[in-house]
Amino acid sequence: MKLDDFQSCIDACNACAMACDNCAASCLREEDVKMMARCIALDMDCSQVCRLAAGVMARASENAAAVCRLCAVLCRACAEECGKHQMDHCQQCAAACRRCAEECERMASASQ
Amino acid sequence: MKLDDFQSCIDACNACAMACDNCAASCLREEDVKMMARCIALDMDCSQVCRLAAGVMARASENAAAVCRLCAVLCRACAEECGKHQMDHCQQCAAACRRCAEECERMASASQ
Amino acid sequence: MKLDDFQSCIDACNACAMACDNCAASCLREEDVKMMARCIALDMDCSQVCRLAAGVMARASENAAAVCRLCAVLCRACAEECGKHQMDHCQQCAAACRRCAEECERMASASQ
Amino acid sequence: MKLDDFQSCIDACNACAMACDNCAASCLREEDVKMMARCIALDMDCSQVCRLAAGVMARASENAAAVCRLCAVLCRACAEECGKHQMDHCQQCAAACRRCAEECERMASASQ
Repeated sequence: MKLDDFQSCIDACNACAMACDNCAASCLREEDVKMMARCIALDMDCSQVCRLAAGVMARASENAAAVCRLCAVLCRACAEECGKHQMDHCQQCAAACRRCAEECERMASASQ
Repeated sequence: MKLDDFQSCIDACNACAMACDNCAASCLREEDVKMMARCIALDMDCSQVCRLAAGVMARASENAAAVCRLCAVLCRACAEECGKHQMDHCQQCAAACRRCAEECERMASASQ
Repeated sequence: MKLDDFQSCIDACNACAMACDNCAASCLREEDVKMMARCIALDMDCSQVCRLAAGVMARASENAAAVCRLCAVLCRACAEECGKHQMDHCQQCAAACRRCAEECERMASASQ
Repeated sequence: MKLDDFQSCIDACNACAMACDNCAASCLREEDVKMMARCIALDMDCSQVCRLAAGVMARASENAAAVCRLCAVLCRACAEECGKHQMDHCQQCAAACRRCAEECERMASASQ
């Protein structure tokens, strides 16, 4: 694979990482932070694995498929939790996570 | 510089990253999470820059001093906030941050 | 500052991280890898600090200016080295690094 | 699980990340860098996933087992390549990768 083949998945990973970081920080500014604790924890994991995935794809690494497979799993978990909350930052994060999961699942399958 | 010269600073960075990640997650499990919001936010930044610093030192990078200088600044900020809270995870984190700041400041000066 | 204020700098950091990772991996596939050794080493540092900066900005962290200041320094160093090599991946990386440095310098000044 | 349960695996991840970063940088200083290209590429991936794993475990994240499972896979791949080269940094890296893979596999199983 070459960089062009990875581009849409890299974009989705970067968008998801940003949405997760924004959601985590915004959750910390909510009135009831306690209710958002699991959301914040999953946001942290998800943003970090998205950045790892963006990097291995940008390097066209032989590990890209394996990392994307994990990334999809963490994105699904984060999307599910964020989707429960009605704040804009949570809903936007859930959408970005779902889109990233789809891209990563596609990438993981294509690379097999 | 060689890896041996960096070892005690790398160890301090790894210990600090772990203390910050543990503190962030433990703060999220506290009864009054809202009070811990700034602590959690600074923990996130600090653990990430500590891992970056550990990596550039392990690569004996020419950028090691510059990264250590930033790491020390973020460690000082985190130590100051964590030090205000009496929970064990906060006090341990504050101590790890102070120790890491000292090591990073020493490293940044030695490399000039 | 809010997320919108950071957007163009985050985009530049993501683009730079991708260009650096692509450049590092492409350098490793060149015939004369030895000539590219410093380029690869600086690419590694630069991509990692760019992802750190993207994250702290996405969290609208109080540390954003300090991290952007370091990011600009590492981008300038990487741009200078990459700019010496005529391969497309190096020239594209040098351009992405310069653009990211400008955005990060602007961000660091604006936040003071 | 609590932080103490993760400690030996976190230590192995930190040691492996350091060995990989040191190996990558040392490979770049070898006379025949081209022969080391795959080793360097795998070192980069491995050090990054090790630091991600150390972080999720330090946060006692519900994603810890999944991340450790991926970490073990990347460690095995890196150990196999590094093991082919006789330089000290490669042999030390291969040993650190194998030890980290064992710890991560144990962690992934224990958490199921």
